[in-house]
Amino acid sequence: MAEKGRAPLARTMLQQCLHARLQVREGDEHLKAQFVQINRGMVIYVCFFKGATEEILPKMVSTLLNLQLCELPSGKMTSVLELPGSVLIIPQATLGGKAKGKAMQYHKNIGKEDGLQLYSTFVSLCEKELMAAIGVTGREAEVTVKHGTYGNRQVLMLDTNGPYTHLIDF
Amino acid sequence: MAEKGRAPLARTMLQQCLHARLQVREGDEHLKAQFVQINRGMVIYVCFFKGATEEILPKMVSTLLNLQLCELPSGKMTSVLELPGSVLIIPQATLGGKAKGKAMQYHKNIGKEDGLQLYSTFVSLCEKELMAAIGVTGREAEVTVKHGTYGNRQVLMLDTNGPYTHLIDF
Repeated sequence: MAEKGRAPLARTMLQQCLHARLQVREGDEHLKAQFVQINRGMVIYVCFFKGATEEILPKMVSTLLNLQLCELPSGKMTSVLELPGSVLIIPQATLGGKAKGKAMQYHKNIGKEDGLQLYSTFVSLCEKELMAAIGVTGREAEVTVKHGTYGNRQVLMLDTNGPYTHLIDF
Repeated sequence: MAEKGRAPLARTMLQQCLHARLQVREGDEHLKAQFVQINRGMVIYVCFFKGATEEILPKMVSTLLNLQLCELPSGKMTSVLELPGSVLIIPQATLGGKAKGKAMQYHKNIGKEDGLQLYSTFVSLCEKELMAAIGVTGREAEVTVKHGTYGNRQVLMLDTNGPYTHLIDF
């Protein structure tokens, strides 16, 4: 979806899941590790590049949540909004890497502060759109948006009936 | 790694795992479903585009297996060959998709027969390189290459301490 002739401002990777569980806070001697989880739905891994601004977010969210990537029992495809399914958003800066020899370089990735700001707004917009869709269908039981903690190690357990991995640049 | 100025001939997506289990044959009333699994190592999702030939495979395999993406307890990064870790290869044609409106299109994906041929050779080369590396290090316990069945639904269970998702085009 990135406009032709310009480098992407954001990269997303999508996987379908039956269940996914993500650590949002590491455990230590005082506190147990904390996790979020979703059942049937879509995992969105997201990375922003230098130059990305909030302007791109509404189109990103609308595109990702409306893409027909989810399989119905009939074999027909539908979107996560229409399913409706849940969404797990995982910040994934490594997606912006480029191989140089044996090492990965991340020169094009956005700075941490700007990245966190974009990530937070991206999560909010996804929540807003999914909640609006649930309102329309009236099927709200356990459909939810969960998300990882920006900058953390993303300890993930994914269970899928076919990840159907898709790459979408913006 | 794709040469500048030309469209990619292959797309790979890499994720680090502690354990991964993939269905290689669906169950039915007569036979149980069959699975392969690996412990610590790397999952390689792979997709070939039109125009890809066996010529690109040695460089692909060498690049992917030598990239320093695996974390040592010290925090230092190393390759799956040096770790040594296992490799799970998953054919993933959806990686070649392009969003057009709400649907994905796969016009650039290679044909099934050529894709299967490239996939099979890719798997063999990975096996050969990993086995050679294990010979060198002498640490062979349970280090292995496993792979999904081309054209199947890829029923996957992934457990990771941080997927560190990387996209590498060739």
